[in-house]
Amino acid sequence: MEKYTIKDIAKECGVGVSTVSRAINNHPDINPHTKKLILEKIEEKNYRPNSSARTLKKMENNTIAVLIKGISNPLFHYMIDIIQSEVLSKDYAFILKKVGFDEDETIVADEIIREQKIKGIVFLGGIFTHTEERLKTLTVPFVLSTISPSKAIDGRVYSAISIDDVRESARMTEYLIKLNHKKIAILLAKKEDVSVGYLRYQGFEETMKKHGLKVDEDLIIYSEGDGDLFSMENGYNLTKQLLSRGKEFTAIFAISDRMAIGSIKALIEAGKKVPEDVSVAGFDGLDISYYYNPSITTIRQPVEEMAKETIKQLFMLIKGSDTNKHMIFEGSIVEGNSTRKIRG
Amino acid sequence: MEKYTIKDIAKECGVGVSTVSRAINNHPDINPHTKKLILEKIEEKNYRPNSSARTLKKMENNTIAVLIKGISNPLFHYMIDIIQSEVLSKDYAFILKKVGFDEDETIVADEIIREQKIKGIVFLGGIFTHTEERLKTLTVPFVLSTISPSKAIDGRVYSAISIDDVRESARMTEYLIKLNHKKIAILLAKKEDVSVGYLRYQGFEETMKKHGLKVDEDLIIYSEGDGDLFSMENGYNLTKQLLSRGKEFTAIFAISDRMAIGSIKALIEAGKKVPEDVSVAGFDGLDISYYYNPSITTIRQPVEEMAKETIKQLFMLIKGSDTNKHMIFEGSIVEGNSTRKIRG
Repeated sequence: MEKYTIKDIAKECGVGVSTVSRAINNHPDINPHTKKLILEKIEEKNYRPNSSARTLKKMENNTIAVLIKGISNPLFHYMIDIIQSEVLSKDYAFILKKVGFDEDETIVADEIIREQKIKGIVFLGGIFTHTEERLKTLTVPFVLSTISPSKAIDGRVYSAISIDDVRESARMTEYLIKLNHKKIAILLAKKEDVSVGYLRYQGFEETMKKHGLKVDEDLIIYSEGDGDLFSMENGYNLTKQLLSRGKEFTAIFAISDRMAIGSIKALIEAGKKVPEDVSVAGFDGLDISYYYNPSITTIRQPVEEMAKETIKQLFMLIKGSDTNKHMIFEGSIVEGNSTRKIRG
Repeated sequence: MEKYTIKDIAKECGVGVSTVSRAINNHPDINPHTKKLILEKIEEKNYRPNSSARTLKKMENNTIAVLIKGISNPLFHYMIDIIQSEVLSKDYAFILKKVGFDEDETIVADEIIREQKIKGIVFLGGIFTHTEERLKTLTVPFVLSTISPSKAIDGRVYSAISIDDVRESARMTEYLIKLNHKKIAILLAKKEDVSVGYLRYQGFEETMKKHGLKVDEDLIIYSEGDGDLFSMENGYNLTKQLLSRGKEFTAIFAISDRMAIGSIKALIEAGKKVPEDVSVAGFDGLDISYYYNPSITTIRQPVEEMAKETIKQLFMLIKGSDTNKHMIFEGSIVEGNSTRKIRG
C-alpha cells in the first residue's frame, strides 16, 4: 500500500498543508467549500489523518530536546521553528527546555536525560564554559548551536554550529571605521565573560589596532549583575553610564540588537539624534532591527542555515557517527539608518 | 533534620540565589572570595546542592507541560519565566512545547500526554475554538492562560485565566476618543476570527457607537493568510493597505504592540510623523513598546499575576478540585509618545 501523506492531499487539492490541517482539525478559519473538497479527498484516498496515532509507536522514546538559554532572544525563535520542523519531519518528537541564565546547562541536560527518554540534545545560546569532564558525562549526542566553541576544551568532545564572533565583530568595526568613525564606544557583557562578549570585544580591539586607532578605556562599557545582559534594558543602562562619563564618541557598537535599541532610547532621552549625533550599530540581524525607528545597522547571522545544519549534525551523531564537527557560518552587514558617514 | 535550601545559603551569605548556584556549578562569573564563603557555608550546613539528585525521585512523572502557541510573542516569555519558577518550586519538572499556528493544540496535548508522563497542562496563547467534546478528551488537568473563554463552550469543562478582551479594547478606544480622535482605523486579525481579534473589534465597535461615532468600513483592516498575524510584518502590510485606500484617519488602533511597531514603520516610510500626523496605539504592554521610538501607548496585561494564578489553578485541579474557574484580570493604559491629543 502506498504511503499517502498530508502533503499529497494538499498537492492534489491545490492548497497548503496548513489548510488540510485546518480541515482535519475542524478549525473555523477555512472556506467551507475547500474543507469539503479536502475531506472528500481524504475519504477517497483512505488517508489516516491523525498523525499522532499513526506515528506514535515510532515516536515513542524518539525525542529531541532543545535546551535554550535566553528564551527572550528573538534570534532563537526562528531557529526553533526550523529545528522543530526538521525534527518532526524525521518522525521524532520535539521538546523545548528553558535554561536559566544562572543554571548549568549540563545539569539541566542530565535531568532531562533521566526524566524523559531523549535521543539527542541541542544547546541553543548561552555561555558555554563547561569542562571537558562535564561534557563527557552527557550520555546522549548533542550539538552546541550559536555558541562559539571555547578554545580551552578539546574540540573532539563536542560538535558546534556558530558564526565566528571575532571575525563578525571585526566586520562591523571595519564598517564603522570606513564611515570615518574613530571614537567608537562598545557596549559589552561582563568583564569576566570568556564567551560571546569577550570574542566580540576581541574582534573590535584587533580591528581598531589594525587601523592605528586607540581603544579608549572610558568608551568600553562592561555589564554588571546577573540575568540577560544582551537585553534592551541593559543597553539602555550601559549607554546612560557611557554618557555620564562625559567622553566624546561618534559611534556606539552594541554587541546585540536589543542592546542597540536600549542604547538609542537612552541617546534620544539625552537629547541626541541617531544617526545625526551618534551612529549606533547592533549585532544579530533581528526583525526588530529592520522595524525600529531608525532601522538599525547590524550583523545578520544566517539562522536558517545554522538551524538546519544543527539538526543534520545531531542526526549524524545519533546514527552512530563519532566525528564531532565545528562548522562556522558567515555573517553579513545589514545597513540600516542608525549609522552614517561622518567627515574623515 | 531541618530542610536547608539554597535560599537559606544565599540569605546567610548575603548574596542572591543565582550567586550560590554559580558557586555550586563552578561558574567563572563569581568573585573567588564570595565563592569560598558560599562553599564553606554549604559544607558547614551539610547542604546537598545537587537538586537534580535530591528531587529526582519525586520529580519522576511529576511534569507540567506548557503548550505555547506563538513562541515569538514576547508577552509569553516573561510568563514562562514565572510559570517555570512556580512549577519548579513545587518540585515538579517543567517542559515547554511549541504549537504551530495551524496545529490543533488538543492533538498536540494528546500526543504529549501519551509520550511523556504529564500531570498537568497550561495552554498559553492562541485561538481556542475547540469543541466541548475535544476538551473533554484531555485526560489530565489543564488551564487556558491568556485565552479569552469562548461563550460557545460550556464553561464548566475548562479553567481559564485571561483579561477581558472586549473591555480592554473598549478602554483603549475610550482613551483615543478622549484625545478627540474620531476617525480611528483598526488593524485586526482575520475576518473569520472568533477569538481575540473578534473580541477586540467588539470592544472598539461598541465604544465608538456609544460615543455616536461612525465605524468606517474602509478603516477596518482585516488580515489574510496564515501564520502569526499579530506580527510586526503583518502590522506593516495592513497599514500599507490602509494608506492605499486613501481615506482620512487621525489614529490607528493596532490590536498588538508588534502590529503597532510595523504600522509606525509603514507610516514613517509614507512620510508621516507619529504622533504629529497619526496617533498609533498598541495592545499587550511589551517591553519594546517602551523602548520603541516613539514609545507606544498600549494596554498592559498583568502578566505576572496571570502567570501565578495559572499555576495556582492548575495545582488545585491536580490536587483533586473539580471546580473549573474563569478568572478575569484587569488591564491598564500605559501612555506613550505615539498618541497625542488633537483639536476637538
